[in-house]
Amino acid sequence: MNQPYDMPLSELKEYLPALTREKDFNAFWENSLSELESVPLEYSLDPIDYPAKGIKMYKLSFKGFNNSHISGWFAIPQTQGPHPGILHFHGYNWAFDGRHHDVANYALRGYAVLFMFCRGQQGDSIDNVVSTHGHSTGWMTKGLLSPEKYYYRAVYMDAVRAAEILASIEGVNKDKIAVVGESQGGALALATAALSPIPVLSVTEYPFLSHFNRAIDICPEGPYGELNEFFRRNSADPQIEIEAKKTLSYFDMMNLAPNIKCHCLTSIGLVDTITPPSTVFAAFNHMKCSKEISVFRYFGHEYIPGFLDKKLKTLMEFLL
Amino acid sequence: MNQPYDMPLSELKEYLPALTREKDFNAFWENSLSELESVPLEYSLDPIDYPAKGIKMYKLSFKGFNNSHISGWFAIPQTQGPHPGILHFHGYNWAFDGRHHDVANYALRGYAVLFMFCRGQQGDSIDNVVSTHGHSTGWMTKGLLSPEKYYYRAVYMDAVRAAEILASIEGVNKDKIAVVGESQGGALALATAALSPIPVLSVTEYPFLSHFNRAIDICPEGPYGELNEFFRRNSADPQIEIEAKKTLSYFDMMNLAPNIKCHCLTSIGLVDTITPPSTVFAAFNHMKCSKEISVFRYFGHEYIPGFLDKKLKTLMEFLL
Amino acid sequence: MNQPYDMPLSELKEYLPALTREKDFNAFWENSLSELESVPLEYSLDPIDYPAKGIKMYKLSFKGFNNSHISGWFAIPQTQGPHPGILHFHGYNWAFDGRHHDVANYALRGYAVLFMFCRGQQGDSIDNVVSTHGHSTGWMTKGLLSPEKYYYRAVYMDAVRAAEILASIEGVNKDKIAVVGESQGGALALATAALSPIPVLSVTEYPFLSHFNRAIDICPEGPYGELNEFFRRNSADPQIEIEAKKTLSYFDMMNLAPNIKCHCLTSIGLVDTITPPSTVFAAFNHMKCSKEISVFRYFGHEYIPGFLDKKLKTLMEFLL
Amino acid sequence: MNQPYDMPLSELKEYLPALTREKDFNAFWENSLSELESVPLEYSLDPIDYPAKGIKMYKLSFKGFNNSHISGWFAIPQTQGPHPGILHFHGYNWAFDGRHHDVANYALRGYAVLFMFCRGQQGDSIDNVVSTHGHSTGWMTKGLLSPEKYYYRAVYMDAVRAAEILASIEGVNKDKIAVVGESQGGALALATAALSPIPVLSVTEYPFLSHFNRAIDICPEGPYGELNEFFRRNSADPQIEIEAKKTLSYFDMMNLAPNIKCHCLTSIGLVDTITPPSTVFAAFNHMKCSKEISVFRYFGHEYIPGFLDKKLKTLMEFLL
Amino acid sequence: MNQPYDMPLSELKEYLPALTREKDFNAFWENSLSELESVPLEYSLDPIDYPAKGIKMYKLSFKGFNNSHISGWFAIPQTQGPHPGILHFHGYNWAFDGRHHDVANYALRGYAVLFMFCRGQQGDSIDNVVSTHGHSTGWMTKGLLSPEKYYYRAVYMDAVRAAEILASIEGVNKDKIAVVGESQGGALALATAALSPIPVLSVTEYPFLSHFNRAIDICPEGPYGELNEFFRRNSADPQIEIEAKKTLSYFDMMNLAPNIKCHCLTSIGLVDTITPPSTVFAAFNHMKCSKEISVFRYFGHEYIPGFLDKKLKTLMEFLL
Amino acid sequence: MNQPYDMPLSELKEYLPALTREKDFNAFWENSLSELESVPLEYSLDPIDYPAKGIKMYKLSFKGFNNSHISGWFAIPQTQGPHPGILHFHGYNWAFDGRHHDVANYALRGYAVLFMFCRGQQGDSIDNVVSTHGHSTGWMTKGLLSPEKYYYRAVYMDAVRAAEILASIEGVNKDKIAVVGESQGGALALATAALSPIPVLSVTEYPFLSHFNRAIDICPEGPYGELNEFFRRNSADPQIEIEAKKTLSYFDMMNLAPNIKCHCLTSIGLVDTITPPSTVFAAFNHMKCSKEISVFRYFGHEYIPGFLDKKLKTLMEFLL
Repeated sequence: MNQPYDMPLSELKEYLPALTREKDFNAFWENSLSELESVPLEYSLDPIDYPAKGIKMYKLSFKGFNNSHISGWFAIPQTQGPHPGILHFHGYNWAFDGRHHDVANYALRGYAVLFMFCRGQQGDSIDNVVSTHGHSTGWMTKGLLSPEKYYYRAVYMDAVRAAEILASIEGVNKDKIAVVGESQGGALALATAALSPIPVLSVTEYPFLSHFNRAIDICPEGPYGELNEFFRRNSADPQIEIEAKKTLSYFDMMNLAPNIKCHCLTSIGLVDTITPPSTVFAAFNHMKCSKEISVFRYFGHEYIPGFLDKKLKTLMEFLL
Repeated sequence: MNQPYDMPLSELKEYLPALTREKDFNAFWENSLSELESVPLEYSLDPIDYPAKGIKMYKLSFKGFNNSHISGWFAIPQTQGPHPGILHFHGYNWAFDGRHHDVANYALRGYAVLFMFCRGQQGDSIDNVVSTHGHSTGWMTKGLLSPEKYYYRAVYMDAVRAAEILASIEGVNKDKIAVVGESQGGALALATAALSPIPVLSVTEYPFLSHFNRAIDICPEGPYGELNEFFRRNSADPQIEIEAKKTLSYFDMMNLAPNIKCHCLTSIGLVDTITPPSTVFAAFNHMKCSKEISVFRYFGHEYIPGFLDKKLKTLMEFLL
Repeated sequence: MNQPYDMPLSELKEYLPALTREKDFNAFWENSLSELESVPLEYSLDPIDYPAKGIKMYKLSFKGFNNSHISGWFAIPQTQGPHPGILHFHGYNWAFDGRHHDVANYALRGYAVLFMFCRGQQGDSIDNVVSTHGHSTGWMTKGLLSPEKYYYRAVYMDAVRAAEILASIEGVNKDKIAVVGESQGGALALATAALSPIPVLSVTEYPFLSHFNRAIDICPEGPYGELNEFFRRNSADPQIEIEAKKTLSYFDMMNLAPNIKCHCLTSIGLVDTITPPSTVFAAFNHMKCSKEISVFRYFGHEYIPGFLDKKLKTLMEFLL
Repeated sequence: MNQPYDMPLSELKEYLPALTREKDFNAFWENSLSELESVPLEYSLDPIDYPAKGIKMYKLSFKGFNNSHISGWFAIPQTQGPHPGILHFHGYNWAFDGRHHDVANYALRGYAVLFMFCRGQQGDSIDNVVSTHGHSTGWMTKGLLSPEKYYYRAVYMDAVRAAEILASIEGVNKDKIAVVGESQGGALALATAALSPIPVLSVTEYPFLSHFNRAIDICPEGPYGELNEFFRRNSADPQIEIEAKKTLSYFDMMNLAPNIKCHCLTSIGLVDTITPPSTVFAAFNHMKCSKEISVFRYFGHEYIPGFLDKKLKTLMEFLL
Repeated sequence: MNQPYDMPLSELKEYLPALTREKDFNAFWENSLSELESVPLEYSLDPIDYPAKGIKMYKLSFKGFNNSHISGWFAIPQTQGPHPGILHFHGYNWAFDGRHHDVANYALRGYAVLFMFCRGQQGDSIDNVVSTHGHSTGWMTKGLLSPEKYYYRAVYMDAVRAAEILASIEGVNKDKIAVVGESQGGALALATAALSPIPVLSVTEYPFLSHFNRAIDICPEGPYGELNEFFRRNSADPQIEIEAKKTLSYFDMMNLAPNIKCHCLTSIGLVDTITPPSTVFAAFNHMKCSKEISVFRYFGHEYIPGFLDKKLKTLMEFLL
Repeated sequence: MNQPYDMPLSELKEYLPALTREKDFNAFWENSLSELESVPLEYSLDPIDYPAKGIKMYKLSFKGFNNSHISGWFAIPQTQGPHPGILHFHGYNWAFDGRHHDVANYALRGYAVLFMFCRGQQGDSIDNVVSTHGHSTGWMTKGLLSPEKYYYRAVYMDAVRAAEILASIEGVNKDKIAVVGESQGGALALATAALSPIPVLSVTEYPFLSHFNRAIDICPEGPYGELNEFFRRNSADPQIEIEAKKTLSYFDMMNLAPNIKCHCLTSIGLVDTITPPSTVFAAFNHMKCSKEISVFRYFGHEYIPGFLDKKLKTLMEFLL
């Protein structure tokens, strides 16, 4: 099983680039979590009339990092609980107004499900961290020159808070919570697993935001390319690239991976040009937890039917 | 609400091209149904270990038109029936090996679901009608020079038989069966509604195989373009195009539409270049049954989140 | 002189779509200007060592709408003034770190030049208006559901303030100030001309942000397409499109055009697919001021060498 | 003479990947030839009024493998024979209704020419082997899960039968028969040379169906990509890829090459992305017969004018 | 038979745009022919060893317009003549080094064939008219600002001279000479038919260089687009477009068409985007000679197999 | 700082392919310069009314190589001279009618500027060397089979002559002349620096026409691809490629580089696919003069804002 792209599978399995953590890496995240703690745990559940029997669907609002308003969906079986929980994050620019149907599909399988809209990307999720500088289109470079102001610091903290909220909802079994997601959603699931004690399982598909230095080099066309575009707009000052890459190091899934404690299942397609296999294996190979990766030779960054059985079985095994 | 493509919505709503039925149109279908009747109603259900509670999933095999082996999926709630039934058809070249997850999602909502793999396109569904001539790649032109040998004659009859099987399965409420499908699946759902008394509802998304004469002209790039390619390969003999178009007239959703008796809900995106709106409205406007169409200005031939609520509500209203 | 795209030139010249102003259109802008007035006129000029003789170049910072920090460039001839002024706005996503060279080229021709980086798009220009909802990538849909929170309200006010600052700088002849710009920059130049008494001339190239309703229909691929994308992400709620289009009406160059008092010169290419000719003529034909348009049959949204002579001559005629 | 693609010429010349023959490789083909023998040698020649003097043109029908009806063209000089024969096979999806003009061009040069339409691909050539499973569009994956049912088994046997028919036609010199073809036609010519004692020469251009394992990896876009598509549709069951590749091994030109006895001339372009040079050299380097390859640095999968002289001269040398 | 492009067939058949001839149109061509006459009729035939029996092949050199060296191929049957003649012109940028094989194919059918390489485009055909100005890449705009210096004046005269040479070669029947060609070659064939009394037949495929004013508007991407590019490079001076179009009027096939006396057969594909049907019909409909057009609904600017029978039959009918 | 294309920066810095000079390389250029000397130094300056104060602008005509008419622009500050001079060459196919504005921008900075239109490419610059053979579109292969007749021989000599003219114009300081240019213009600037004693500085951006052998291999799509196209059109005669490459060796910037005496500053983008970094470094690394290269990781063949400061500063340092 070969493939013409990125690295051969045999190399991928051994690929272990050096971590790029700054000295204060862990301190940075401890400070961030402290800052999150200062935000009171507040949320509201607004029931909606969803066309399916057996579950209850709610529009969810909660107070996220920096006291921002974050929205999403919550669904739970109508049967007596407690029910195991799934925290679901969406892909980058993949948050449209019909995502509650995915939520329903999980709930119908017996899970209490919380789906979070990433701030700024959709719905009423508000991105209230003001960037200190101009950036290229999209969110990848918003606040990029400062770890404290970088867009994803708030998003990662929103994700941790979402886990805390899911664990606190009545009828949810707080000891059986999984984080799941695809692409950006996969990164958020892993970040939550690394930064929060709540998840007992992560199931991610082709997680994004990993091994930035290589991603910048080998996939300038996709979302990672927003970084390339940022460097193009600031070609006169080489210091900007240096600072930006330093910021990115705090958010690199590869650097967060060793902190993960729960079991991790992930998938990757070997012809994925959005989140190339080497970036996913870089994070996977740095995990020290119990872990499993499903590799699909003929798939890119897309729905991989062959992974779904494995994913559903793993969720059942850990949660039901 | 305007759009730059095909026809303005106001024209679409009034668009009623003349039917292209041959004189023996109804006789042709009566003969085909007679031929189908000669095939014994035989099927087998092979239970599989699907990772979800509350439903039973089966690999389905049945005897289709021309005694061919047709495969698919069947799922049904584990609760006491009878359950309303959904007969689901897939899109053209959209039949891969994970479609049982869609089946599960319907079953979890309370329906007994039969999903049929179109002959030749996937799984163990065998296309045993031997074409009388060479054709272009794909199935659109297989047997195109003879209505009796045309690929879709067998598929339409397989679809009718699938409805008969669903109605006959224990635990299924044979008086509450809907046909659903997207693109080619939409065409098969409508064909079943036109040719079988079983369906009490059809819910289709951007149905294919309609108003061929216009489709050949305005969408030579997509699946309809297989017809253009066939005419290119036979450029020396103009009679071939004439015969082919005569064959197509029997299978044109526009010509079948007046025969539909049950309620029909359909969707269409106004920038759909695979099944252009005019081809869908041509069929819709020729329906004489109770009917409804949901129009989406900014969508093409793709998942339309905004339609899903409507679709699920309509299914519940008619079936549950 | 024909062309195959949009409308023939003869129709363009007569094209006068009805304005889409809301009743409180003028009140909205009066309120916005009042709000701007509450921000003190503050700026700083930080001299830099620019490699050209005869001019002085400064990094500019000023306080913009909502008290945000806005940055840009300012250059002025070293000769005795007062010098006529040019206020220059950049295109959408066309703000990179070398734009001071354009500024220098104008200054070397005898003008005091102020170049503003649009908030959020580059440099230290900070977009501090927090949107009330998620949006698609880019700035076109940021805050789109509320005229008060829409991104361009702040940008238009920043532009007016930039004109006020230019007029107040020592050595600048406040009675001889022109606004210039390409694409988004053209829109900002026209908006400034409509909302500020300062400009005595506008010279714009293929101005953007005009006749949104048609632009959405005929150019879904370019920057206008961010609107289409927003409607796609919110397909379930038709009210969102209605509200968004209402918001856009306040910012539509076509609606602002009748308010312009100064002379306007603009250019347009007849095969421009980013800002189609009909959208530019819609604004131009609604202007009641002295005006002139240069039409280029063989050009799109790009540098049009043949316009530069006219542009430079017009600037000299009105300012020098 | 370098090139940026596939392998450098120096490596290509030495490239000798291990054969992938199954143990029963030769037995499989002996059985197939036995099965072919059971089909009676039957054909008919239907003269047509072709617009050229000096040759006679016929529509040809013959009984192919599995007793199927196969069609094609036959032309022969009107002069006294016996005439040397050329058996010509067409490229994949390159069989349209004007191929008899190519036949005429050979006949005018003094050859008796038989051109076969591959079953299913054009004309009245009927593909009567019913596949045991669904497949992706095209013929590459039809019957792929069983060597006995694979599409190309029937086609290779049709090709052998075509050689037998050409050798038996009155006026044809059965001791001077060459097989020629481009791409798929090249593969069929080589297969015929490997499986039939009749050909004394093969002249092929960029032959297809060779070194499948590498082709799947390096050219997923062209016809070989139908294999990738098949594996994508069956992503849940890895056994399917294993079985499919086993089937392909029987039909791999690389595995058939050592069996060829006659002289082989072939061409290849070094930037061919449909049948990459390494796949062609893999077959060529495994030939043990007298052989010659013409390499064209600047050509892909297309008409290579510089090869035609060589091709015509070689045909004359061996046949006339 | 409809198609979505250019004009419907019914309109094409009636399409008769006004001629754009200048007053001295005929005088211009009379002068050009006089100038050609001053060049002595000189040529040489250099036999080459072509791999086919029954014909003799020669490398041809002759003295063309402005005394330039023009090269090409000549082939003639070895049988006793006189043989009817075919003068063959190649398409724009379609002159590579293997075109003598096409020549051979005609010669084997009984014709004496002269194939001319257009000056500058290939081989030893030298373009010795020095342009008075810079132009865009290609030959379409070389000398465009002066009818006397325009590239195609020399080429049209070379073509006339080629006809004179063919008529003068021993063994050629000077009363049975046809001109043939595709695209640019079609234009040259028609120009020769209009400007020389020699041809008794023209058979052209999708002739180029016709109805320039419309072509500039509707096909800016193909070879006609070199004109658009020229106008783009000279955007500051509108007079240049006026003069260029005046020059083109002398060479417009539409304007030359009424002068043709011999029978004309032409083909056109209805989805041809290089030489759109309307440009071809513009010339065809202005012909006053005996004429015939073959229309192919599903073809563009490419080999049209279905036309070849007609073409060969017509050649036989008029020449053999 | 890595990049995925061509070679890593560390390799580029050391890349020193062997020169491909023929033995008579220097003699060839001495002869060419002698031939140039036989052309009298003649030019005329025609003042035009350019819309800027402080400079005088002229349309320039001069007698170039082979006594051809060459045109361009000349501008000079109105202040008392002598002024340092800049000789500016344009990119391939990048010569349109508005280039005098660039000239003005330099003149406003205090330089006397001469801009030359390359013969044949624009304006009244006439290419009067008649090629000995046909070629592909564009100028890259015009006269390619003979060093004496190759297009760029005349252009290089025109460039040397342009330097001589600039040095001789009144008001120009002949001891302070720089050559500048982008792409083809960069090659001409370097050629002038190698072949003329006049320049004291060259500032070039991504120079073209360097290391042809590698360029042919790695960038067949851009302008270098005209060479590939030429070899495609002459596929039957391998001698043609050999002769063509021999001709190119005389014009290869890599071979001329060791002859340069003045200081050279150049820029290159690491993702430049038109003039790949390795071709630029090949020339740069062979220079023996004082030199400097600015490398931009995120830029291709395009305007690089970050280089402009360096460029302007270097010009000031050497000239003002």
